[in-house]
Amino acid sequence: MTVTGKKTQGSWVESANRAAIDFPIENLPYGAFRRRGSNESVRIGVAIGDHILDCARLAEIVGRDAVPSALVDGNLNGFMAMGPAARKAFRAKLTGWLAAGSPDAARLAPALVAQSEAEMQLPCTIGDYTDFYASIHHATAVGKLFRPDAPLLPNYKWVPIGYHGRGSSIGVSGQRVVRPVGQVKAATESSPPEFGPCRRLDIELEVGGFVAVGNALGSPIPMAQAEDHLFGVCILNDWSARDIQAWEYQPLGPFLAKNFASTISPWIVTKEALEPFRVPYERPATDPKTLPYITSTVNEQRGGINMVLEFYLQTAKMRASGQPPQLLSKSNLRYAYWTMAQILTHHASNGCNLQPGDLMGSGTMSGPQPSEAGSLLELTLGGKQPITLASGETRTFLEDGDAVTLKAFCASDNAVRIGLGECVGTIVAATQ
Amino acid sequence: MTVTGKKTQGSWVESANRAAIDFPIENLPYGAFRRRGSNESVRIGVAIGDHILDCARLAEIVGRDAVPSALVDGNLNGFMAMGPAARKAFRAKLTGWLAAGSPDAARLAPALVAQSEAEMQLPCTIGDYTDFYASIHHATAVGKLFRPDAPLLPNYKWVPIGYHGRGSSIGVSGQRVVRPVGQVKAATESSPPEFGPCRRLDIELEVGGFVAVGNALGSPIPMAQAEDHLFGVCILNDWSARDIQAWEYQPLGPFLAKNFASTISPWIVTKEALEPFRVPYERPATDPKTLPYITSTVNEQRGGINMVLEFYLQTAKMRASGQPPQLLSKSNLRYAYWTMAQILTHHASNGCNLQPGDLMGSGTMSGPQPSEAGSLLELTLGGKQPITLASGETRTFLEDGDAVTLKAFCASDNAVRIGLGECVGTIVAATQ
Repeated sequence: MTVTGKKTQGSWVESANRAAIDFPIENLPYGAFRRRGSNESVRIGVAIGDHILDCARLAEIVGRDAVPSALVDGNLNGFMAMGPAARKAFRAKLTGWLAAGSPDAARLAPALVAQSEAEMQLPCTIGDYTDFYASIHHATAVGKLFRPDAPLLPNYKWVPIGYHGRGSSIGVSGQRVVRPVGQVKAATESSPPEFGPCRRLDIELEVGGFVAVGNALGSPIPMAQAEDHLFGVCILNDWSARDIQAWEYQPLGPFLAKNFASTISPWIVTKEALEPFRVPYERPATDPKTLPYITSTVNEQRGGINMVLEFYLQTAKMRASGQPPQLLSKSNLRYAYWTMAQILTHHASNGCNLQPGDLMGSGTMSGPQPSEAGSLLELTLGGKQPITLASGETRTFLEDGDAVTLKAFCASDNAVRIGLGECVGTIVAATQ
Repeated sequence: MTVTGKKTQGSWVESANRAAIDFPIENLPYGAFRRRGSNESVRIGVAIGDHILDCARLAEIVGRDAVPSALVDGNLNGFMAMGPAARKAFRAKLTGWLAAGSPDAARLAPALVAQSEAEMQLPCTIGDYTDFYASIHHATAVGKLFRPDAPLLPNYKWVPIGYHGRGSSIGVSGQRVVRPVGQVKAATESSPPEFGPCRRLDIELEVGGFVAVGNALGSPIPMAQAEDHLFGVCILNDWSARDIQAWEYQPLGPFLAKNFASTISPWIVTKEALEPFRVPYERPATDPKTLPYITSTVNEQRGGINMVLEFYLQTAKMRASGQPPQLLSKSNLRYAYWTMAQILTHHASNGCNLQPGDLMGSGTMSGPQPSEAGSLLELTLGGKQPITLASGETRTFLEDGDAVTLKAFCASDNAVRIGLGECVGTIVAATQ
């Protein structure tokens, strides 16, 4: 059979063979769900087409020994901690069970749940969440707005800049985001700051990487081992209150401007599924060489990922009139100035202990072109150049009722498309 | 009986009645422990004198209904989530059971464990850790070193500045801290940064506040309710790599300079025990009024805490020759420019959800005098003025083998001394 022009074996789950589906049999991402309306405890599942293979039900059918017990117990962190060998071994089994013509099709069908019948949950317990700043295009564009005299700071090309974010307020796609309230700098130097609902509410188009095996406190992770500590990726929307950020962020960085909510897509696409889309890690020849501790040949040859990232907006008016979400920008993860492996190795280079399920955001993944900006701040030049939507409405920053959809997928002529699904969030009015 | 000049009822646990003991019956802080060398699961205990009242054993003696089940189950977070009424009710019971002359003395004695027989653990699960910057003396002194032209930024007197820290690397007193390795700015503009062991390893003398009841995402905590969301406090050493910090911290704040380790004292002293030491929240009359959302009469009248904070250093040479730790500075929590209630309300003001067991650091609690500095950076004027120790050694920053002890206690003429115990950490050589 044929999917997007490439011969694959396909699956007996027919929807997995549709063109442009996010979850063909070559993907097999992990997520956590409950059957809609049930009170059951959270179950781990694997997306296949428009269905989910329920790991606990799977184990009842194929035998508990054939499925990692962490998956049966609803504990994705436990599976992450088992590392790449166990993950690859289970992937091979899943591929066999789900392949077109598999003798297991009939007995496994009862382990499928329609995605429309599932309420997705956070896929795992996120102990610590760190966000990076890995797009030099974003750093330069935002730097121009915040520090016109010094857009790109002297450390940028040396240090994979990152900061700790808030774990508790990370939600899964479908999250309703209450417009944050906060302090904003006064219009005049002599006036007190204003306290009220954010007026410059923005998105950040990012990819999140999940840690697989962790490291002990005090024991760094060398580059040669970095890839083995990565489990997979999701889409991440790092909602940002630009007016609050501008006033609070010095000297210790963004805080309330970020920690009111972050939204991730429900499915974690594993490293294995992304293999066909690995690309060289490139930086301009005129830029300084990376320091040895974040340099490796493997990283240079295939540290990058060719992944399309999209930012869609749908206002309340568009929704009411049946207008679909409108594409505002399109970027690519390969623009990252620092790869996920470099980010991880840098993070642990001082001995900081990473744990299974920790989330590391790429930072806003803007590209070199204005149409590739990963935030409204960049798309509207700091709010000075409104965007006109198909509905006739204009936007500089987000209004109440706006729904933001981020999408990500990998596609090339040589491989089946691998999608990350969607990351959706809707703005609701401030409560104060 | 008499303790530090004040009549109290005392306890039948004799050590609790000693002068200058940290844990008299008026204290009753919570911690988590294992019996030394045992493989038992973590138990919650209450410090009394030089002993620990084991909550699980206590429940076996007085009946499970008389002890909150979370405490019996080793889950301090669950007890924190029960809020102040449950905490006060159990405190009243504990006071009755442990009071001198209590008819329960004989049957409760088997529930006591000597502190010398216990291995203290982190007292609770710390979901998110946030560190603030609440001493204006520290902010000004450090600001002078990092930004001579703008030591105190324009937002300082308006915004309780804070940032997210690392949860995974928080350890309990006794922690061995591996000297971090990291990037440091080159000596000349044209050279690449150096990567190696930190040369300016420092401490930060802080108090940590634990969240009791949390708030739902999107629902702020008004000042009128802030105190009800606070459980108690510990001592916090926010170890800092100043050379790494100076190079990495712009624009997103400190990261690897901090997240290699943070150490807390094992006992959480509850709000109730600190009641006699609450003092007015004061700021200079010439400073701007705080914004209404972080203002309350109760906070002005008694938002502060009169708590002595001490920083001791003992080098390996001092330890080998039997010299005790040497007091390097002494400060007070009442110097805080922002109270714990203001910090908590500000943190949740944008809707950020706090959870039981979350830790909020005060920031380095330096006082107005040079001898009240809460870091070596300040004590040595950025490393320019070495300290000469009693051993004849000198220090600007920490050397391998140095042990740092932080102490904190409340004492006044009108109340029994309430101690927080000690927070000890020892530097070991970098592993690279």
